[in-house]
Amino acid sequence: MADSTTPEIYSHWTALNKFNYGVYIVSSVAGGRINGQLANTVFQVTAEPIRIAISINKSNLTHQYIMESGLFSISVVAESATMIFIGLFGFRSGRDIDKFANAAYKKSPHGCPIVTEHVVSAVAARVVEKVDIGTHTLFIGEIIHSEILSEERPMSYAYYQEHLRGKTPKASPTFQPPVENK
Amino acid sequence: MADSTTPEIYSHWTALNKFNYGVYIVSSVAGGRINGQLANTVFQVTAEPIRIAISINKSNLTHQYIMESGLFSISVVAESATMIFIGLFGFRSGRDIDKFANAAYKKSPHGCPIVTEHVVSAVAARVVEKVDIGTHTLFIGEIIHSEILSEERPMSYAYYQEHLRGKTPKASPTFQPPVENK
Repeated sequence: MADSTTPEIYSHWTALNKFNYGVYIVSSVAGGRINGQLANTVFQVTAEPIRIAISINKSNLTHQYIMESGLFSISVVAESATMIFIGLFGFRSGRDIDKFANAAYKKSPHGCPIVTEHVVSAVAARVVEKVDIGTHTLFIGEIIHSEILSEERPMSYAYYQEHLRGKTPKASPTFQPPVENK
Repeated sequence: MADSTTPEIYSHWTALNKFNYGVYIVSSVAGGRINGQLANTVFQVTAEPIRIAISINKSNLTHQYIMESGLFSISVVAESATMIFIGLFGFRSGRDIDKFANAAYKKSPHGCPIVTEHVVSAVAARVVEKVDIGTHTLFIGEIIHSEILSEERPMSYAYYQEHLRGKTPKASPTFQPPVENK
């Protein structure tokens, strides 16, 4: 990593760290199996029809499921969520563990998991476009289902980093490797 | 609008209102002319190379300039910004007024305006992919320049809505028409 961390790239990282994100659990279903992962890069791209975009690492199991079923859901994590709760969905692969074994959830009408604790709202979407952007795929989905789960405050990514000392997984679009001598 | 605002769509809006965004000024340059507009839907899509995505309404002048030059910049608005400052870039078209006439700014090495007051950081990007998503184009850009402008807190979209009573422009990807009888 030493080679790629030029002062210029370090400046880019510092500038991009000021972007504002939320904390989300992106889930999918394929052939009856379900999986979910932590994500921060989720946003609405058009108002009519209502479409959202997510950037998902190609190596993730959730990516595989979304490619198979063309379906995904977003559960918006609440500020009350603990690192133990967040840890259920982040930092480990659904290939090794059943991520929903210890989580409260229900299924959307199309079968995508919707997390029901420490979540303020959720939407489910059907993929209408896939954009190959190298390490990640940008999935653009049209909203087909939504739920309001609590009146809590949604967690911001800044809150996750500042108050929970949350780290950014290596597969995240916003991952920055540790810098030894900055 | 009455017809399209079904209880289902109203639920979608309420769920999507929990997504977390920042407040940004997206600017571009074409043929020596410059323009900027308010945006909330800006996010990083890959870490290596460092690429970001923005959703811009096709009817906006900034969209035209980005299509022409393949360049855009993002100025990350600080929490200290007033509605008067934000109003310089939102709610009116650069076709009618020179939006930078009353704003402090400089130019990136490639000519894109970077706002220098009430801004915490800025990046400039070269478009590597354009995705037609109906009313908007999703521009994916590779970062070619960055600046840190202050140590202030970046403004969240929730802060803009709650504390400044900021409205969402009609051309925004997250616009929701007023609901009379909900």
